[in-house]
Amino acid sequence: MTVEPVAHRRRERRAGGGIPQLPFRQLTNPFTPLEVLSTDHVEEIHRTSLRILAEVGIEVLGGRALDLLAAAGASVDRTARRVRFDPALVEELVAGAPAEFTLHARNPERNVVLGGRSLVFSSVGGPAFVSDLDRGRRAGNWADFQDYIRLIGCLNVIHQEAGGPLEPTDLPVETRHLDMYACLATTLDKTWHCLGFGATVVEDALEVVAIARDVSRERLLDEPSLITIINTNSPLRLDGPMSDGLIAMAAAGQAVVATPFTLAGAMTPVTLAAAIAQQNAEALFCVALTQIVRPGAPVVYGAFTSNVDMRTGSPAFGTPEYVKGAIASGQMARRYRLPWRSSNATASAVVDAQAAYESEMAVWGAVMGGVNLLYQGAGWLEGGLTASYEKLIVDAEILQMMSEVLQPVAVDEASLGLDAIAEVGPGGHFFGSAHTLERYETAFYRPILSDWRNFETWAEDGAQTATERANRIWKQLLAEFEPPPLEPATAEGIAEFVARRKREIAGS
Amino acid sequence: MTVEPVAHRRRERRAGGGIPQLPFRQLTNPFTPLEVLSTDHVEEIHRTSLRILAEVGIEVLGGRALDLLAAAGASVDRTARRVRFDPALVEELVAGAPAEFTLHARNPERNVVLGGRSLVFSSVGGPAFVSDLDRGRRAGNWADFQDYIRLIGCLNVIHQEAGGPLEPTDLPVETRHLDMYACLATTLDKTWHCLGFGATVVEDALEVVAIARDVSRERLLDEPSLITIINTNSPLRLDGPMSDGLIAMAAAGQAVVATPFTLAGAMTPVTLAAAIAQQNAEALFCVALTQIVRPGAPVVYGAFTSNVDMRTGSPAFGTPEYVKGAIASGQMARRYRLPWRSSNATASAVVDAQAAYESEMAVWGAVMGGVNLLYQGAGWLEGGLTASYEKLIVDAEILQMMSEVLQPVAVDEASLGLDAIAEVGPGGHFFGSAHTLERYETAFYRPILSDWRNFETWAEDGAQTATERANRIWKQLLAEFEPPPLEPATAEGIAEFVARRKREIAGS
Repeated sequence: MTVEPVAHRRRERRAGGGIPQLPFRQLTNPFTPLEVLSTDHVEEIHRTSLRILAEVGIEVLGGRALDLLAAAGASVDRTARRVRFDPALVEELVAGAPAEFTLHARNPERNVVLGGRSLVFSSVGGPAFVSDLDRGRRAGNWADFQDYIRLIGCLNVIHQEAGGPLEPTDLPVETRHLDMYACLATTLDKTWHCLGFGATVVEDALEVVAIARDVSRERLLDEPSLITIINTNSPLRLDGPMSDGLIAMAAAGQAVVATPFTLAGAMTPVTLAAAIAQQNAEALFCVALTQIVRPGAPVVYGAFTSNVDMRTGSPAFGTPEYVKGAIASGQMARRYRLPWRSSNATASAVVDAQAAYESEMAVWGAVMGGVNLLYQGAGWLEGGLTASYEKLIVDAEILQMMSEVLQPVAVDEASLGLDAIAEVGPGGHFFGSAHTLERYETAFYRPILSDWRNFETWAEDGAQTATERANRIWKQLLAEFEPPPLEPATAEGIAEFVARRKREIAGS
Repeated sequence: MTVEPVAHRRRERRAGGGIPQLPFRQLTNPFTPLEVLSTDHVEEIHRTSLRILAEVGIEVLGGRALDLLAAAGASVDRTARRVRFDPALVEELVAGAPAEFTLHARNPERNVVLGGRSLVFSSVGGPAFVSDLDRGRRAGNWADFQDYIRLIGCLNVIHQEAGGPLEPTDLPVETRHLDMYACLATTLDKTWHCLGFGATVVEDALEVVAIARDVSRERLLDEPSLITIINTNSPLRLDGPMSDGLIAMAAAGQAVVATPFTLAGAMTPVTLAAAIAQQNAEALFCVALTQIVRPGAPVVYGAFTSNVDMRTGSPAFGTPEYVKGAIASGQMARRYRLPWRSSNATASAVVDAQAAYESEMAVWGAVMGGVNLLYQGAGWLEGGLTASYEKLIVDAEILQMMSEVLQPVAVDEASLGLDAIAEVGPGGHFFGSAHTLERYETAFYRPILSDWRNFETWAEDGAQTATERANRIWKQLLAEFEPPPLEPATAEGIAEFVARRKREIAGS
């Protein structure tokens, strides 16, 4: 072996010091999306969803949403809080949603496009717990929140933060969101999710992102800069805080990911067709509501249908049913020309082979299905209850590899290499040929985490598993973290706003 | 949670006692194969391959092969042992190979179809080492060989054995193959690979399989029952034992998997287009030779192109380049209407998250690319140097999940479940509904290995990783193993043949 180690590779950028990474880059998916439903099946599910909305209806617990839905022509039973929708009205409203939109970041180079052939990877959002190999599993807290955000910032393959990777339970609940927003807006130059439970947390996020981007609230109307998840409470219920959050986001022109979180067997029937029909009804309901609030408001078709283990009631993720549910969801989203969100999920309690194979199942299913927004893309463990530091690194590797699978294969005279093959001839090797030497630095994917050394070398160096190596890697990334540039005036503006709001909340 | 544990599920068969498994079943791939090459690119690679065969040629070290090639019209330089092929002759010979064929097992229910939309999963073949969590890594040996074959036998998702999961290095090298064949033919009722290095090991396999299937040697000509891998020594060399083995197999109407094992950067140029062009040239050469020996002989387009790490020279598997190389290979195989073989591979030295994510990359790439024969499907570790007991179980889970992804989604009035959704209504749950109770036993995939319990339950039960659970599972399978039925006369016939051949070899 005569090739010397490569100190620097052209296509890499060394964010976070010595850990090799691919650069931040927009991704488009070149593959025709996989289908598990025939066109007729898609239409049957569509029609069933419209019948669910017309005949069964959705229970809506928010008063403002009931008012808006009634005013838009839905049938509203205020006593039962039940909303039924004429199929033609649903179709008309859904058709008004944009097929594609751009979400604006503090650094315009980190803007992301949602829809069409674009593919965006988000980090984990929402866990109550955090874990790593050294400290084990513990409640989410402010110190870990900040560290985890730093890692999301420096991992180039993660396009977008996803609403708080873990809950900082040691901060006061009334003002927690303000600290989270300040951290997100100052630590990251990427787009980030705001919270969606109620109008207040949305309003505060709008103020923070306007300061961070140094734009007016009015301009935010035309430049969506925030995104949030609106979950239905399946089956067929939209609660008060979620409906208020949806209304506040749509009214401000910000992006809503309308996501029924359903586990077949518990929150939907056990059959995949019924699970997708019900998910579709709930998603369309939320999409329609965004368009009632503000025609043309950016909205994403969220899908998160998995199943429970019928022997124990435990939720399962990354299963065959999960994969087929995701692919079917993508077909439904494209039926309505809406951007589609899926997830990287596993039920494993530990960062092991199961966590990796379930995540790969989820990621491949989503990407083959043509996903636009891969939420929970990196860090999710234990059915979403825990944000794991080591899983974040494993997932970053999985996402980087997938991003390279999407890159085109060059086929031309130079790449076909006939001269090199003739020059080396039978029984030779290509290490030293000119064709190799001109290209070897950038020819192949270079991993973050994978260890390709032979058994003896690997064993002599401590016989570490991928999870143990991931532990070393996130610590190194954190030690070498440097935040992206931020104008002092911007930082001050955000700090002043947060301080003022905390005083207001304390005095209220 | 009101649903009781399910003691038996209709679609499961309890091979090997208490471990739940899907039944042995033929698989067809419903998805349109993924493409990374345009039609023009496929033709450019094809033309480059023909130029390699015409202008550079293949070095052939076997005398019989040189004779046959010369007689068939190839240009043979006997001094340099270099064979050059007219493009039209290559195309004509390759066109004579069958697009699809059946490989016959001792139990006709275990026959497999190679080609078309069929998908066959093979076990690991060829490692020098064997490992498990208890005994670590050690040289392949006879006791482990027999145990590993038992596990391959009882794992229903494995359709086919693949040529010895590990080398029994403690058996005499001259007669080792006879003990291996006797073990394969009596322990398994599935199809198995024979060795391919030379005519003798092929001839002995033919005798054993004829006794095992109780058919004449003549009938084997029309009912291929053996398969072997013929590797080129890339670049562009076919050695003596391999060419003799190829000739013996093709002459007997048995299946050859013509597989250049190439690592881009070492055995081919670093560019994927060149690697595929060279692989294609070598594969076509072997395919053509099978058709010279016996027109219509069954042959599979083998592809095993990965790359080395250019910083260290280590081989890498399950990488983005590996995935794209596999998908491109499938396109080339379909260009010639040949069955296509790919692999499940990882470079990891240990059964960890890396082993799982690299294997998933390889399996998804192969299946999305429309693979017919997934060789090394279960058990491969450490770049193929080691057969791992725990990896065998991890891979069985990966393959089972993939086999379920390929099953169709039912969409009809019953599965759409509108009545059940209306009956449960907003805010309810589906555990107790009639729609659920009628279907819950078979609604969802039931894993072999995955643990979906919550963190607390999992931790109280020993906090085992998937690899540690896999260790328990293979031991249970082995403890409960029962071989498939075998006529005593068949067992005696095989034993007598082996004893006679051992005497002959000792006397020679």
